[in-house]
Amino acid sequence: MYPSAPDKSPPSVEEAARRRREPRAFDASRPLDAAALEGVLAVATLAPSPFDLQPWRFLVIRDEADRRRLKARARNDPRIAQAPAVVVVLGYHHPDRTHLEPMLTARTAAGDCSPARAAEIRGRATSAMRGVADRASWATRWAMPAATLLVLAAQSAGMASVVVETFDDEAVRREFGIPDDHSIACLIALGHAVDDEPPAGRLGLDEVCFAGHFGRPWGP
Amino acid sequence: MYPSAPDKSPPSVEEAARRRREPRAFDASRPLDAAALEGVLAVATLAPSPFDLQPWRFLVIRDEADRRRLKARARNDPRIAQAPAVVVVLGYHHPDRTHLEPMLTARTAAGDCSPARAAEIRGRATSAMRGVADRASWATRWAMPAATLLVLAAQSAGMASVVVETFDDEAVRREFGIPDDHSIACLIALGHAVDDEPPAGRLGLDEVCFAGHFGRPWGP
Repeated sequence: MYPSAPDKSPPSVEEAARRRREPRAFDASRPLDAAALEGVLAVATLAPSPFDLQPWRFLVIRDEADRRRLKARARNDPRIAQAPAVVVVLGYHHPDRTHLEPMLTARTAAGDCSPARAAEIRGRATSAMRGVADRASWATRWAMPAATLLVLAAQSAGMASVVVETFDDEAVRREFGIPDDHSIACLIALGHAVDDEPPAGRLGLDEVCFAGHFGRPWGP
Repeated sequence: MYPSAPDKSPPSVEEAARRRREPRAFDASRPLDAAALEGVLAVATLAPSPFDLQPWRFLVIRDEADRRRLKARARNDPRIAQAPAVVVVLGYHHPDRTHLEPMLTARTAAGDCSPARAAEIRGRATSAMRGVADRASWATRWAMPAATLLVLAAQSAGMASVVVETFDDEAVRREFGIPDDHSIACLIALGHAVDDEPPAGRLGLDEVCFAGHFGRPWGP
């Protein structure tokens, strides 16, 4: 899984999150190990999602001309062309239509789930998804856990990553054939850093955390 | 950081993601270690966000009566009342207004960032945020990396978690004083599991991953 560091144990969740730095530039001459990239993508699929609907899709751009085209649609961020791989993280709007039944069938067949339990899950999932007014926003939101896990898995595998959220949505769709029932959540450039941005400070729990009621100070 | 397992090294990112199970029920009689909960929240703040704006906020509900009130607003999911802590993960709409300048000032003061570089980051962040048409959706999306890290950190600390996305948004805001410039991204119930849901199968990379163009099969 981590061929670049065979004799070091991979970092914990906290260590991976703490060590993450935004690269100022990627080393365009250093390719990514293909197996390591595949491993990172596989870890990303383990992310949580409602009813395990797994609405994320990954469009991996490795061809240099393709990365240059993508860069032109992402405010010319040079890192998009430097990074040997850029993952366009997509959110799929209708996983309940296409994925729910096969998943329940597989779980029932595996003995993990009684038919009654499958019916209950089907009922709850269908009802919940019926309540989703904005499918595009829902899919974007629930692609983010996979994007986050992808970044942490990349860090664990010794890769640098930067999450890019500013791009021309319509142009990227057109260039790479992304259909209307998928939203673009973000772009993640992956590679080896030349130079890291110093870490930005973190807001403390006294600033971001409340206890019991909004605005009431947090204390453990 | 991980007082519940002092002599075991914490799991890697992949192990934490792979071991995660959805609890069918929480053991309401087993409290959460307060220091461990604080540690999990602190790890969640290490999540990535655009320009490190950190738009997440955590409203931690521990009081039993409060959890019952929250449960009533979340389709009566019994786990919300069983779990000793429920984190309402919020996305704050305007971190660029309140957090960008203090962050740049701190970075410049620390010598991490020249005034020219700070001006460049300010310009890019301001321009990017000016392009955000829907602040509520932006904030919800960028609260999700913190929610994801919270789930992984909880797993690493030996806690079970379930992410709940179906709730009465207006009622939860009213009950817990959440202002209009914050969106509710999800609820995360944290505790010790009585019984786990068997893991749902994962879609393979052949199903969720494309190479170079949407629909083109992925291969490493």
